[in-house]
Amino acid sequence: MKIYRVNMTEGKVTSEDVPEKYAALGGRGLTSQIVTDEVDPICHPLGPKNKLVIAPGLLSGTNAPSSGRLSVGFKSPLTGGIKETNVGGTAAQKLARLGIKAIIIEGQPQDDKFYMLKVSKDGIKLLDADSIAGKKNYDINKTLRKEYGNNIGVMSIGPAGEYRLSAASIAVADTEGRPVRHAGRGGGGAVMGSKGIKAIIIDDADAPGVSIHDKEQFREAARDFAKILTEHPVSGKGLPMYGTAVLVNVINEAGGLPTKNFRHGRFEFADKISGEMIHDTIKERKGLPTHGCHAGCVIRCSQVYHDKEGNYLTAGFEYETIWAFGANCMIDDIDAIAKLDFLCDDIGVDTIEMGVTVGVAMEAGVIDFGDAGGAINLLEQIAEGTQLGRIIGNGAGFTGKAFGVTRVPTVKNQGIPAYDPRSIKGIGVTYATTPMGADHTAGYSITANVLKVGRQVDPLEKEGQVELSRDLQIATAAVDSTGLCLFVAFALLDEPKALQRVVDMLNAQYNWELTTDDITELGKSILRTERDFNTRAGFNNADDRLPEFFEEELAPHGAVFDIPHEELDQLFNF
Amino acid sequence: MKIYRVNMTEGKVTSEDVPEKYAALGGRGLTSQIVTDEVDPICHPLGPKNKLVIAPGLLSGTNAPSSGRLSVGFKSPLTGGIKETNVGGTAAQKLARLGIKAIIIEGQPQDDKFYMLKVSKDGIKLLDADSIAGKKNYDINKTLRKEYGNNIGVMSIGPAGEYRLSAASIAVADTEGRPVRHAGRGGGGAVMGSKGIKAIIIDDADAPGVSIHDKEQFREAARDFAKILTEHPVSGKGLPMYGTAVLVNVINEAGGLPTKNFRHGRFEFADKISGEMIHDTIKERKGLPTHGCHAGCVIRCSQVYHDKEGNYLTAGFEYETIWAFGANCMIDDIDAIAKLDFLCDDIGVDTIEMGVTVGVAMEAGVIDFGDAGGAINLLEQIAEGTQLGRIIGNGAGFTGKAFGVTRVPTVKNQGIPAYDPRSIKGIGVTYATTPMGADHTAGYSITANVLKVGRQVDPLEKEGQVELSRDLQIATAAVDSTGLCLFVAFALLDEPKALQRVVDMLNAQYNWELTTDDITELGKSILRTERDFNTRAGFNNADDRLPEFFEEELAPHGAVFDIPHEELDQLFNF
Repeated sequence: MKIYRVNMTEGKVTSEDVPEKYAALGGRGLTSQIVTDEVDPICHPLGPKNKLVIAPGLLSGTNAPSSGRLSVGFKSPLTGGIKETNVGGTAAQKLARLGIKAIIIEGQPQDDKFYMLKVSKDGIKLLDADSIAGKKNYDINKTLRKEYGNNIGVMSIGPAGEYRLSAASIAVADTEGRPVRHAGRGGGGAVMGSKGIKAIIIDDADAPGVSIHDKEQFREAARDFAKILTEHPVSGKGLPMYGTAVLVNVINEAGGLPTKNFRHGRFEFADKISGEMIHDTIKERKGLPTHGCHAGCVIRCSQVYHDKEGNYLTAGFEYETIWAFGANCMIDDIDAIAKLDFLCDDIGVDTIEMGVTVGVAMEAGVIDFGDAGGAINLLEQIAEGTQLGRIIGNGAGFTGKAFGVTRVPTVKNQGIPAYDPRSIKGIGVTYATTPMGADHTAGYSITANVLKVGRQVDPLEKEGQVELSRDLQIATAAVDSTGLCLFVAFALLDEPKALQRVVDMLNAQYNWELTTDDITELGKSILRTERDFNTRAGFNNADDRLPEFFEEELAPHGAVFDIPHEELDQLFNF
Repeated sequence: MKIYRVNMTEGKVTSEDVPEKYAALGGRGLTSQIVTDEVDPICHPLGPKNKLVIAPGLLSGTNAPSSGRLSVGFKSPLTGGIKETNVGGTAAQKLARLGIKAIIIEGQPQDDKFYMLKVSKDGIKLLDADSIAGKKNYDINKTLRKEYGNNIGVMSIGPAGEYRLSAASIAVADTEGRPVRHAGRGGGGAVMGSKGIKAIIIDDADAPGVSIHDKEQFREAARDFAKILTEHPVSGKGLPMYGTAVLVNVINEAGGLPTKNFRHGRFEFADKISGEMIHDTIKERKGLPTHGCHAGCVIRCSQVYHDKEGNYLTAGFEYETIWAFGANCMIDDIDAIAKLDFLCDDIGVDTIEMGVTVGVAMEAGVIDFGDAGGAINLLEQIAEGTQLGRIIGNGAGFTGKAFGVTRVPTVKNQGIPAYDPRSIKGIGVTYATTPMGADHTAGYSITANVLKVGRQVDPLEKEGQVELSRDLQIATAAVDSTGLCLFVAFALLDEPKALQRVVDMLNAQYNWELTTDDITELGKSILRTERDFNTRAGFNNADDRLPEFFEEELAPHGAVFDIPHEELDQLFNF
């Protein structure tokens, strides 16, 4: 395998053998290590010293089930700290099959032009992007597929990334060429924009593929693992059936669905935006209730959502998006929320950050709570590059500051996602302490706090939350390195054999002799690396805190976030 | 003396005796200690937990020359750290004569209304501010003087403070009721706005005055000290004659006048904005070339600037303002710069932050470099509360982020003032390390680097800059506690007897037995307190750095900022 280095200052692409140090790393483990090794932690995130590092996971490109996840690493313009953002779609598998361990994009072009990277079996070519500059993501994909065929993978940025706004995402096309999977959080699109890269085309025609040391052993482990996934009630039933939106009713019932900019824990109209309702609507309008975001996915939590006329409206319609624009903004019109999802995908902004931001703009009185048309207009302003669009496109913290609002749900300046930390306290520990800024995926305590997967930790009690979050953060960092979708975690937590099967696949592929303990050690090492970067970027324990308004009681449980600071500071004691 | 506490949540004013702990503190020493003792370092700066602490210096209200400086302390919405901002005008002397050691404004009103504080011999009353809400500073002063007479002192916020923008200042009227002195830096106006306080009226009619233990000794020391000040070439000649703008030619000659958003060290048209030229213009237009910002000032560096028609345009027209809109924005029209100064005073924004911000907006292409009309329009938008105005009014860092610009001269998110840290390296050490964010007054190395006051340290060499900045930061923290104007420092540094005279005044007034060493210890203690607050607010050494573009060579000396990080980190080793 090779590491490719794209130097945008010189307009040059080079490749290098994988150094020994990086041989056992992939995905998040690799991107976080390269960022830590090569990026000055105090550099300007949009300047020439930042780097955008793209790496498929260790198992990507193989037949391992649901192994098509890609990691994108950089210093975040949103948080100022290290960022790994993880995405499905068509990129990871194709890059891995092309023998690419990582792409490092560095420097900054001397001109104001946008460029494209064409990645194929012949290496990486730097091309001009005149045909797509200024375009939105759907249009980009249409244009590129016309020129390069329908089998390409595409990573791209929309206008938000071109404007280098902190909420800008990197879109990754799904198998049908729809830009619905996003390396969303932390402003990766802005970093890509600052490098002058508008799109990355990945053509894996005649790719060598991934070499597997022991094919038989790999096949057996993969088959077993797929069976475990499909037999688990969450990854085998709930997610394929209803998508992630199955959580709307579950989290609402738990009193943890943040409503009206985190004022309440339940949304009166949750049933109008629930997974069950969406499922029925999709069927009725002849959309697709289940769909895989990448080839080889056995969980298939995605779906294709049609409008009232039966025309395509959006896909990859996630729980967090539905919550962000729904309960959080008091919008109960699911078609409007679907339109907002489409706009985020098209313009290239993180749906979570945008929903939280629109909530803050509503708090500020820019528009009213519940005003779906106003929310649509705010997103459209981002694309238009208006002054208001530049405020909104820089996220919730920025918008709060612009309008002098104090009720701003962020940690490390990143918007807090769809689970209230007062009534589901384990996730609050994760929000506060993960080096990523408020991020539910970094240590998804909902498993034990709500879903009773793996273990049970009462979501309303203080006890056990730090330990829970620590264990999950360690496990997640490791999973994010394998290229496996994080949704395999439900099975990993419940079924003791599952982790061994992941280790078996890795050993079979790479001729390694890992044990399950090594996986834990990998997770710990990644977290230490990321935290070290953040310390050198200017963070200390005082940055590991939730906003003060989480001292307000949250109905229906009257819960507050009361994990003592000293306990939060124990999270990294491992 | 008393400490008054204004609780805006309850709408209640109480007074308390000065606790032993605070007895020996005044000015910055007192505000920084109270903020550190009472403000949660991780609170939202615009929320109810922040406090605005107002304290005259230890010698304020006496006949000590140039002793009318006021300290305002708070957690800064601009930097996120502790802030002491120091201002002349009519407040400090009157508050001290009323026996007020400090006013602590805390909490937050439950309604959206604005209030006023009326401070008099009868204590502090909380009044509604209906007559001035929404008004700009000049109008506020006119209205209040009509109602309360011409002998009041006034502290007020303009629209920027009402909007809670991070560059909002607190205006303090001069003796003629012009809002031309500002507690400018760090967003004190936003904090005052967040407390719902539009103005503070200080009526010292029949005030008890300041009690002096040994009047004879005090008088003698004060007379001597005044003589030293008036005989020093800077405080006795340069400043009274030309005002602070005398520095335009001096710093330009040194190659340290940041030009075109810190691209060059000399401005081609420096002579069109120099102190000498301004002096001549003022005389020609029958303004006042010299004027004291507070009663009892012997330095009188202020002036009254008339327009071409001979009508009042602005006053307190400082070097840093002239630089900020002049060389930094490439505007060579001094009348336009005076108009920009007037607008900042009227709207209530920090002139330094605004000049740096307009430079960044020019960098972004919002308007062109040199476009004076465009700059005026940008400031007017702040008053109008437009989206663009909210961007600009939140300062340089915010504006850079809005427009995706990386050449943003800030430290701890506060705009870098009028001395390039590459060609005057001592000031670069101060910018990087002071707990205040980029602030020239915190350790004004220009003395030794350029003016040859006190000692000489070659501005272009690395050696000695950290020691210089450390010594000056310690001395400054102490001077900022006395109520003496920082411009006494020229004499303090050059004339060994001067500091003893300050100590003599303090001892005579308070019946203390201080030595000059105690003054140094006071300065050290203040810096430690402030740094401790910042550490608990989330700062570490990595925040003590200049932006990366100061690695670019600066003409005419080809200088870069090259003080090693390890040396910067030694600054607080005392």
